[in-house]
Amino acid sequence: MKTEQYSLLKEKLASKAFSSIFVLVDENTDKFCLDIFIKKTNIDKFNKITINSGEENKNIDTCLMIWDKLNFFNADRKSLLINLGGGVLTDIGGFAASTYLRGINFVNIPTTLLGMVDAAHGGKTGIDFKLLKNQIGVFSEPKEVILDSVYLTTLKKDEFINGYAEIFKHSLLTNKKDLNFNSLIKLDFHKDVNFIIEKYSEIKKEIVELDKFESSQRKILNLGHTIGHAVESYSYMTPNFKELRHGEAIIVGIITELYISYKQLNFPIIDLKNIKSNILKYFDQVKFDNKDISLIHDLLAYDKKNEGEKVNFVLLKEIGRPIIDQEVSEEVFRESFKFYNQSL
Amino acid sequence: MKTEQYSLLKEKLASKAFSSIFVLVDENTDKFCLDIFIKKTNIDKFNKITINSGEENKNIDTCLMIWDKLNFFNADRKSLLINLGGGVLTDIGGFAASTYLRGINFVNIPTTLLGMVDAAHGGKTGIDFKLLKNQIGVFSEPKEVILDSVYLTTLKKDEFINGYAEIFKHSLLTNKKDLNFNSLIKLDFHKDVNFIIEKYSEIKKEIVELDKFESSQRKILNLGHTIGHAVESYSYMTPNFKELRHGEAIIVGIITELYISYKQLNFPIIDLKNIKSNILKYFDQVKFDNKDISLIHDLLAYDKKNEGEKVNFVLLKEIGRPIIDQEVSEEVFRESFKFYNQSL
Repeated sequence: MKTEQYSLLKEKLASKAFSSIFVLVDENTDKFCLDIFIKKTNIDKFNKITINSGEENKNIDTCLMIWDKLNFFNADRKSLLINLGGGVLTDIGGFAASTYLRGINFVNIPTTLLGMVDAAHGGKTGIDFKLLKNQIGVFSEPKEVILDSVYLTTLKKDEFINGYAEIFKHSLLTNKKDLNFNSLIKLDFHKDVNFIIEKYSEIKKEIVELDKFESSQRKILNLGHTIGHAVESYSYMTPNFKELRHGEAIIVGIITELYISYKQLNFPIIDLKNIKSNILKYFDQVKFDNKDISLIHDLLAYDKKNEGEKVNFVLLKEIGRPIIDQEVSEEVFRESFKFYNQSL
Repeated sequence: MKTEQYSLLKEKLASKAFSSIFVLVDENTDKFCLDIFIKKTNIDKFNKITINSGEENKNIDTCLMIWDKLNFFNADRKSLLINLGGGVLTDIGGFAASTYLRGINFVNIPTTLLGMVDAAHGGKTGIDFKLLKNQIGVFSEPKEVILDSVYLTTLKKDEFINGYAEIFKHSLLTNKKDLNFNSLIKLDFHKDVNFIIEKYSEIKKEIVELDKFESSQRKILNLGHTIGHAVESYSYMTPNFKELRHGEAIIVGIITELYISYKQLNFPIIDLKNIKSNILKYFDQVKFDNKDISLIHDLLAYDKKNEGEKVNFVLLKEIGRPIIDQEVSEEVFRESFKFYNQSL
């Protein structure tokens, strides 16, 4: 996938393949990205739908508002929704489009690094429900995903954090020597951004291609997310705990789950230590006390990917060799946080 | 498809293939059908979710309630939702299941004749939104559809009306001599009910199989529904007009659209008259004045299947030879209601 490929979309817009065009933005992408998008596509006629940014708005009320606007402007089955924004926006826009009239076409134009390498790809759409993330949704592929790093110039520096976490994860899942973790850390995240977006989004796409409905192999993408999601939820619901960004929580998940991999699958200790020290150049180390660790363990049961009563982990045998459906004892789970807590 | 096939479901229930079972009922099927279902399946452990019957409850609020109950009882990706009810219930249950955790399995057990020959098959799920029917939904196939005419014994006589309309429609779409309209009218709708359910649901299934996402050929199932839906909506929103059941409205749609077929595609006049007189043995003739006809024409524009500005009809060249995407002038539309209004 090459970046900046507007040509297909421009062609379709020019050919009047769609009966009407809707562009979904939030208050940020409305301000900083929409003009760029208009200039790059030469789009001349569309309806704008604006939602509020933030995970707290990824809910059924926002979705009802989008459906209502589509209705109001007479969207029909040949209409197109263009999602211009980060992961929250492409998730909810994809869900709204996939359920409107039993599915209209949508295009994702991710404007964050996380969106570019992860969220905008793979056909997972959805909203949060009753505090549970992505509880309601469907699998539905966008017609196209347009990658353009120009939108990254509109972001604050700390908004790259979430993207870094997924890029690290993808580099741990690939068995391609020139893209795996040890190659990645030699790159410059700023100068090499186009290469990174192109290559690391491709890793995700290849995994998804093999298993669109997450029945088995796609689960490897949950590396770091079993513990990561629990840590993220915990940080939000605990008054005296620092609220973590998604990426920060996932990094905690990656390091702890690699420690568990070392304990259970003999993941090489040298890689484990190397990964921890390199990743923590980009991320502040969080502190977890025993009470935190116990409560995070309790939260794991709520992870939606659990089947029946068991909590299933993705672990690594080595870099590029993930193993799914692994069970983990509370003891090893606790140990993994002790390893994470150790100073470098 | 043979009727009364519980064996596959029973086998799966016995094998614990599902982590938990939910049965969706409304107040009627809870009272009249659930005990039969329990007896036939020997199911011993399930959570019951009860919704209110009626099209007016086929909305997002009912859906939110179902999602909430699934959540509350810890439904996970290996849970199963069994929809025990008519078309409204299987539509909304199918939608709730298909969007919960990006889709859990569901089984439809239709309890009405309409459900058995039509609504429970074909993977259309959805809810109404802002007065528009099935505005929100997805295409999603049930794991299984179980046909058991025993549930029909729980219905009042006039609840068969909606089923008759679809059976007539299917008989007009098939080119199988032993099932087409002229063969159908020789059957006894009561004594031959198992044969009718089996054969006429199969006609629908075969059509859907060719075109799951309604991109072209499946549209033939809209025969009678372009005008029928407008007539149905009109009857609901007009104070001094008799509220029509879905099937009654569809029959008006079938007769008017066959008249249009006669005018535009030379559908044989002898068949047209024969069909009208035979169908109206089962249905009361409605009266439409000029004002009604004008307003129904206006309502057509709201039909969700319209693409851009045009209203597309399914017409018949002859019995079993449907032609899609036909445009119809207001003049011929008006004439068709005059033909419908004529006494036999």
